[in-house]
Amino acid sequence: MLWGNNGPNTKAMKRITAFLASLLLAMGALSAQELSNFSWGQRPVVSPEIQNDSVTFRLKADYATIVKLSGSWMSGWDAAIEMTRGENNVWSVTIPAPEPEIYTYNFIADGVSVNDPQNVLVQRDGSRYLSMLLIDGERSENYKAANKRGTVSHPWYDSKLLGINRRLTVYTPYGYEANPKAKYPVLYLLHGAGGDEEAWISMGRTAEILDNLIEKGLAKPMIVVMPNGNPDQQAAQTFNLPTTDRDWRNQDNRNLYVRSLVEEIVPFIEKNYRTVAKKSHRAIAGLSMGGGHTITASGMYPEKFDYICPLSMGANKSPELDAQLQGIKKAGYKLYWLACGNTDFLFEQANTLHNALNENGLEHTYYVSEGGHVWANWRLYLNTFVPLLFK
Amino acid sequence: MLWGNNGPNTKAMKRITAFLASLLLAMGALSAQELSNFSWGQRPVVSPEIQNDSVTFRLKADYATIVKLSGSWMSGWDAAIEMTRGENNVWSVTIPAPEPEIYTYNFIADGVSVNDPQNVLVQRDGSRYLSMLLIDGERSENYKAANKRGTVSHPWYDSKLLGINRRLTVYTPYGYEANPKAKYPVLYLLHGAGGDEEAWISMGRTAEILDNLIEKGLAKPMIVVMPNGNPDQQAAQTFNLPTTDRDWRNQDNRNLYVRSLVEEIVPFIEKNYRTVAKKSHRAIAGLSMGGGHTITASGMYPEKFDYICPLSMGANKSPELDAQLQGIKKAGYKLYWLACGNTDFLFEQANTLHNALNENGLEHTYYVSEGGHVWANWRLYLNTFVPLLFK
Repeated sequence: MLWGNNGPNTKAMKRITAFLASLLLAMGALSAQELSNFSWGQRPVVSPEIQNDSVTFRLKADYATIVKLSGSWMSGWDAAIEMTRGENNVWSVTIPAPEPEIYTYNFIADGVSVNDPQNVLVQRDGSRYLSMLLIDGERSENYKAANKRGTVSHPWYDSKLLGINRRLTVYTPYGYEANPKAKYPVLYLLHGAGGDEEAWISMGRTAEILDNLIEKGLAKPMIVVMPNGNPDQQAAQTFNLPTTDRDWRNQDNRNLYVRSLVEEIVPFIEKNYRTVAKKSHRAIAGLSMGGGHTITASGMYPEKFDYICPLSMGANKSPELDAQLQGIKKAGYKLYWLACGNTDFLFEQANTLHNALNENGLEHTYYVSEGGHVWANWRLYLNTFVPLLFK
Repeated sequence: MLWGNNGPNTKAMKRITAFLASLLLAMGALSAQELSNFSWGQRPVVSPEIQNDSVTFRLKADYATIVKLSGSWMSGWDAAIEMTRGENNVWSVTIPAPEPEIYTYNFIADGVSVNDPQNVLVQRDGSRYLSMLLIDGERSENYKAANKRGTVSHPWYDSKLLGINRRLTVYTPYGYEANPKAKYPVLYLLHGAGGDEEAWISMGRTAEILDNLIEKGLAKPMIVVMPNGNPDQQAAQTFNLPTTDRDWRNQDNRNLYVRSLVEEIVPFIEKNYRTVAKKSHRAIAGLSMGGGHTITASGMYPEKFDYICPLSMGANKSPELDAQLQGIKKAGYKLYWLACGNTDFLFEQANTLHNALNENGLEHTYYVSEGGHVWANWRLYLNTFVPLLFK
């Protein structure tokens, strides 16, 4: 299986064959831009190539002196392995396939980071673009496309509290359009610092995970709302939407985003989508900074969410925390699902929150996984807690 | 103005300042991944930097021996200019700002193509990722974000004709959600060979152009549907959706995509969106291969579209073409708007279609622009013909 290989050469070649055929009808139209993706007469470079239990990476680099491969499966920040120059200056390295998961990687050619030009699958992590590799297996099964797929939309809403028009990502499940009277529960799913409204869809594989869980009957059909959690930012990746300039150290501004989430985004969604506008049909989850938003939103608005899932986040012990947890307990809830990796730099704080939940008498699940503060864990958590929602 | 500069350093710095403040509330959570975007203590590299009438590009490349800049404003396929190594191994070059437009560019470090790591704005052209540069001016005014923005969605539809489930891009104008009884006309907008359902949104700036034209009162609010015109492809950029294998030279398969467009996509849109399901409220336009699809669809289904806009495409003279044009003339239409660049490699074929339209007595506009088979022209055409639709 070669999911990783969606390089230009084989696919474009096929498409051009198809296209050349259609010339009979409408004459030739192939831009020089499209042609430039080819190396006519040369065997195409294939990368990454997954075979049995190994993966081969290749990069054509005519003038480089050192080419390395860096991958998210390696440990250590500047971990990289050297590649070897072969025929036609195609550098390559073959490694044992890492465990089933989605990974990111890049080449380092003479000290400069480069995406794999043969791999169309690219993830944006904040401002960095990295090539993607999926290793097939039970753990990564739900990260691939399902047969029945929901719709991903990007509506904008006006935030009076923040004074800007802001972009959301919204997933509606398969069947939403075809069943115009059906109403759905909603999961509010929040990203971490450095992320934006595209993080959960792109790196988190939210659409694929939800599609698969729903198709397999493991999760209820639901809407998932992924806002932009950076209160100074209107949207990711735009030419001319300046960030706002607010003093975030000012106490009055501190919870503006969480207020906007509950007081503006929730009503916007419940007005414009077919939802069940009840606490029993609202869940909130978030990773890292979004886990902080989850803890704060559920604490400030104990009547809003029956399902509360902070991921890779925790809290310090404080009277304010105890008071908020007591508020949640008093209001009642269906699920408090806390997750953290056992090597996460926030593991201790997650343990503190776990203890505070116990001390305050709040039933909850504490899901501890291997590993750290990484998307591999956040995909795993999403895939694990979504089946528990709205049941 | 510095639209091009959305690099990680300044923005991430601001966000982290904001975030550090929020630590007071929920303690620190910043992943090593996020930290890796910084060079603490070093002045951040800014690229591209637009000042007055010049643009400076910079790349930190410690071990490179030759670094070049290649940009879509340069002429010739391998046009590139050398950059100079400066302090801290930051290579740079300053050029006179090109004319207002959106451009793509990349660095070539020791022969390897690299995106600008300081520029979060990246376009995917088929399988190539390129950094983007916007030069402000009258021509590029509508390519930036408007104040009131429509929603971009990615629904999937089942194609019985093609035997696959396929992804669409749909733009609904600002106000669509807030006016649940309003009905809208629809523009079907088709990409070229090498493109897919994301091309018009990403490279074509369709959402921005429509938002701006509608906000300025220059265009009617309308829905824009951007299908995937590669009949063997379910969607762009997925892990595991194999392309289908059909013999496209077989006459029976030749027009399958155009049939699917008119017989499947149009009904899907008219069922699931609030449209006016009449010829007078349907337009079709496409570039290059999509221009061929436009010519074929309007010819095969003369009762479907009142607005017909082939872009950077033409036709060879044939009895079949004459018959189709006569069919369109007989059925009636509101606008036939043909556009081509005067250095386009298809300019001669566009002239042929222009002449055939004249010879068959079809009133039409022939819009000839400077330049060739490039997105700069397709954005210009979209910005020019959309105000003429549905009026």
